Amino acid sequence: MFRATINADILKDSMEAISTLVDEARFKLDKDGISTRAVDSANVAMITLELDADAFESYECTDGEICLDMLKLVDILGMADKSDKIELELNTETHKLMIRMGGLAYMLSLLDPSSMRKEPKTPNLDLPAKVVLNGKDMRLAVKAAEKVSDHMALGVDGDIFFMEARGDTDQVRLQRTKDELIDLTSSGPARSLFSLDFLSDIAKVVSKVNEVTIHLGKDYPIKIDFEIADGKGKVGYLLAPRIESD
Amino acid sequence: MFRATINADILKDSMEAISTLVDEARFKLDKDGISTRAVDSANVAMITLELDADAFESYECTDGEICLDMLKLVDILGMADKSDKIELELNTETHKLMIRMGGLAYMLSLLDPSSMRKEPKTPNLDLPAKVVLNGKDMRLAVKAAEKVSDHMALGVDGDIFFMEARGDTDQVRLQRTKDELIDLTSSGPARSLFSLDFLSDIAKVVSKVNEVTIHLGKDYPIKIDFEIADGKGKVGYLLAPRIESD
Amino acid sequence: MFRATINADILKDSMEAISTLVDEARFKLDKDGISTRAVDSANVAMITLELDADAFESYECTDGEICLDMLKLVDILGMADKSDKIELELNTETHKLMIRMGGLAYMLSLLDPSSMRKEPKTPNLDLPAKVVLNGKDMRLAVKAAEKVSDHMALGVDGDIFFMEARGDTDQVRLQRTKDELIDLTSSGPARSLFSLDFLSDIAKVVSKVNEVTIHLGKDYPIKIDFEIADGKGKVGYLLAPRIESD
Repeated sequence: MFRATINADILKDSMEAISTLVDEARFKLDKDGISTRAVDSANVAMITLELDADAFESYECTDGEICLDMLKLVDILGMADKSDKIELELNTETHKLMIRMGGLAYMLSLLDPSSMRKEPKTPNLDLPAKVVLNGKDMRLAVKAAEKVSDHMALGVDGDIFFMEARGDTDQVRLQRTKDELIDLTSSGPARSLFSLDFLSDIAKVVSKVNEVTIHLGKDYPIKIDFEIADGKGKVGYLLAPRIESD
Repeated sequence: MFRATINADILKDSMEAISTLVDEARFKLDKDGISTRAVDSANVAMITLELDADAFESYECTDGEICLDMLKLVDILGMADKSDKIELELNTETHKLMIRMGGLAYMLSLLDPSSMRKEPKTPNLDLPAKVVLNGKDMRLAVKAAEKVSDHMALGVDGDIFFMEARGDTDQVRLQRTKDELIDLTSSGPARSLFSLDFLSDIAKVVSKVNEVTIHLGKDYPIKIDFEIADGKGKVGYLLAPRIESD
Repeated sequence: MFRATINADILKDSMEAISTLVDEARFKLDKDGISTRAVDSANVAMITLELDADAFESYECTDGEICLDMLKLVDILGMADKSDKIELELNTETHKLMIRMGGLAYMLSLLDPSSMRKEPKTPNLDLPAKVVLNGKDMRLAVKAAEKVSDHMALGVDGDIFFMEARGDTDQVRLQRTKDELIDLTSSGPARSLFSLDFLSDIAKVVSKVNEVTIHLGKDYPIKIDFEIADGKGKVGYLLAPRIESD
């Protein structure tokens, strides 16, 4: 059983954070909230999302699991106004999720769990550098990097956090000192290279977020975490590095 | 002779209501105003429009008929600001309609009436259900229906008006009780299926209209009527049903 | 040596005025400011731009010349907010122009001057008619003309300035009397025909300009001049006429 009401903008932001990486997602439902963990088809990026029961206006749920077509879901939520309340109700007999908003009822078929990929394991990573910055900075750096290359390095050098990209003729670099950041701590230099394909999608999502926490290593994956729903939920991205060719 | 001045937004709204269904239209001009009746090329939808002489700021006209390229006309009107006054003047010698706005003069050639389809007859329909609703509701239902199907049913069941669409896996339904509508009267249940091709275009036009009157039957055409120009004009759409396959 | 700071909107407007006609430009730098003169690849249109040292917040420069990829430059400036300060610094060793804004540093490679076209000469023209008008009028006339033709005539007839285009069936004309213009002086009638390809691009640029000065002759080039940066810079377009076929 799953029946819940939630503000449209919270649900939209949450689901778009997922759909930016994967087309389909498997959600765990229990009394504490809903959560998902999924990797993109190329196994390069992972998204984890938790949305607490508190983030909902009303929430009734017994343990369960549902698989959803994220593109359809985000498309449907796109019809809601920001201030709309959205009602969700699972019909376990018809295998459909009823989505209600403003008198409109949409019955979305669940996907068959057996056709879905298994939930990925979260790798255990020890990343030496941590940076907290405004999501706008990340978006700006990624947009600039796209003009010169298809990949981008992020790193920490002493008290400086940098994002940079080198093209055949041009280069672009955004750097922030510890003073200009919300926070920076590191136990040594870090620098890793990432595909802009994924960073670009992630940067669009975080561009609205005031506090984004980044964990970095040396030629290691990057973790990008932030809160949603006024702290009643969290999103985490994990992105594998590209090998830097000299 | 035809010489008239009118607010840009009234003329724009009127002409767009026509151009959404037909590319060319034949207008009757007389001292009481202008009017048109036209069917789309597939004979599925009919538009009737009447714009009273009162809807114009100034209006001088003797009986006549002109045929216009609606796409060109709407394109030209698109250059006007909402608050512009538009002057129209027919030159019967050059067979052109002079359109003046803000110092700009556009001479639009009339189409040859002999190359146009004859004016359609208005069928005499006895439709048992009548619903008055906000045009926004219709637009919302149509946008949702487009996500699951290419056709949509509208109907009345007791005190409930509904619009619904069924796709291969998903369904969508918007319903309003009599209390939630501006008005609903019926002498029995009604339900007919329509192509979203036409409903979608019509819904865009009525989305700005506060009071839209719908007449419905059982597998019968739908009539969609509303006022323009503060009641000094009216638009009516008539749309043939599709046969529902079970 | 060249090191300068300037408001983003001034630099954007200036560079877009150039990039609308040419993809690459050669700039002269000296203590009084920067300037360029370039013709499009078909030798139909010429742009001249001068931006005084006063137009910059800070300006240090020794005599020099740099060649820039205008499309890249305008693309980079597109990332700046209107109120941003932009820092420019030439590195003569690496042959790169450093562009800094909001913590972002972009290193743009200079183009090789030897691969560029030579600076064109400015023809000496004696144009009998001069019109000063709001750039919006020009934009409106060009947009209307595009609906009927691919070229447009501009001219002066007594106290009337006109812009007009004739298509196969339709015609469009915008005219302004001397009273409706900022200024009009002429020593005889003028009328020349121009390709809308170029006029359309120029009209987009001047649409934001309150005072545009046009010099016209009879089947002669047109000069279109206006100030930028509160009078601390100026832009001039020169456009060759098309021969009018009767």
